[in-house]
Amino acid sequence: MTGLFVVFEGGDGVGKSTQAALLADALAADGREVVRTFEPGDTPAGARIRQLLLDPSSAPLSPWAEALLYAADKANHIRDVVAPALARGAAVVCDRYIDSMLAYQGAGRVLDMAQVEQVARWATGGLLPDLTVLLDLDPALAVAEIGDKDRLEAESADFHQRVREHFLALAARDPGRYLVLPARLPRDELAAAVAERVSAARGRLST
Amino acid sequence: MTGLFVVFEGGDGVGKSTQAALLADALAADGREVVRTFEPGDTPAGARIRQLLLDPSSAPLSPWAEALLYAADKANHIRDVVAPALARGAAVVCDRYIDSMLAYQGAGRVLDMAQVEQVARWATGGLLPDLTVLLDLDPALAVAEIGDKDRLEAESADFHQRVREHFLALAARDPGRYLVLPARLPRDELAAAVAERVSAARGRLST
Repeated sequence: MTGLFVVFEGGDGVGKSTQAALLADALAADGREVVRTFEPGDTPAGARIRQLLLDPSSAPLSPWAEALLYAADKANHIRDVVAPALARGAAVVCDRYIDSMLAYQGAGRVLDMAQVEQVARWATGGLLPDLTVLLDLDPALAVAEIGDKDRLEAESADFHQRVREHFLALAARDPGRYLVLPARLPRDELAAAVAERVSAARGRLST
Repeated sequence: MTGLFVVFEGGDGVGKSTQAALLADALAADGREVVRTFEPGDTPAGARIRQLLLDPSSAPLSPWAEALLYAADKANHIRDVVAPALARGAAVVCDRYIDSMLAYQGAGRVLDMAQVEQVARWATGGLLPDLTVLLDLDPALAVAEIGDKDRLEAESADFHQRVREHFLALAARDPGRYLVLPARLPRDELAAAVAERVSAARGRLST
């Protein structure tokens, strides 16, 4: 049996968790073991890292410290959650992964992108998703809808514009592994498009 | 005025803080501003990272997660403490720095050393000490003296042997920046040897 690794990416408030839950339900209805997970924070150590990263009242972080904390969370998450699930043939459906680190810490904070990519690769042992679904939305619309903002949500419009553009650039670089959808399509239309691509990816993997 | 960056390295229980305090007192008696600091943990975010790293009861960390957390602490510590102090001409006396990360996470945990060195360099912006004092001691002697052990102290004898050998190898690679002293010499003899080398380094820096 072959594991399947699907990641949902995009800004805050675009509907990643809704779509991830719908996909997880569809896969489970097929009789498949599904692991729903997210970054950062879905391990015991990761939960403490997440708090340090996102709590607006916590101590100021240098941009590199922030990127390295995200990478540390990934290293733990891959080892303890994602890799074991894939090894036993489960489908892993994950909310955010490497692209978020590249978009927010690399493009958003303007760190050297090649360096951030290297760190992400070392932290994850180079593990790539079989499919990344990017829910794309103009950040001006997305951010306006969020009430209490965490540290990243509270960043400037320019920051969120750079993040969006980098997500799109990553998808353009490797179209075979990405599905880009306008986040404001109706929920069921999005879910159907995701299910179709996942089913194609599964066919590819099992042959 | 030129800043001066002196680091004390070596295993636990070798007397780093005692010697760092003696050097700081000597420099302060000279009328110099001295910043005594340490890694990990000497910033507000760093203190939380330190707790995550060293508390034996905290969640298990993958080796890369551990290395990345040390690097995140460094990124914050350099930006918020060390670099500003050096910029205003202070002497910074620091307990542990990059060498500890290379020795414990690289050699001890057996991660790819070139990768760990890269991450440390990015996190610190390549800042190197003017002088590193390595207090060398057979780890079998040092560890036996410690009562309650934190997570790294509780590692195997082999681990601590690799750590010691890597400290010595780093010193051998760049002798002009290192002073290696047997940690069991009398306290005042060690302090005098450190003071002499620091004074030579200051002469070199101010010319």
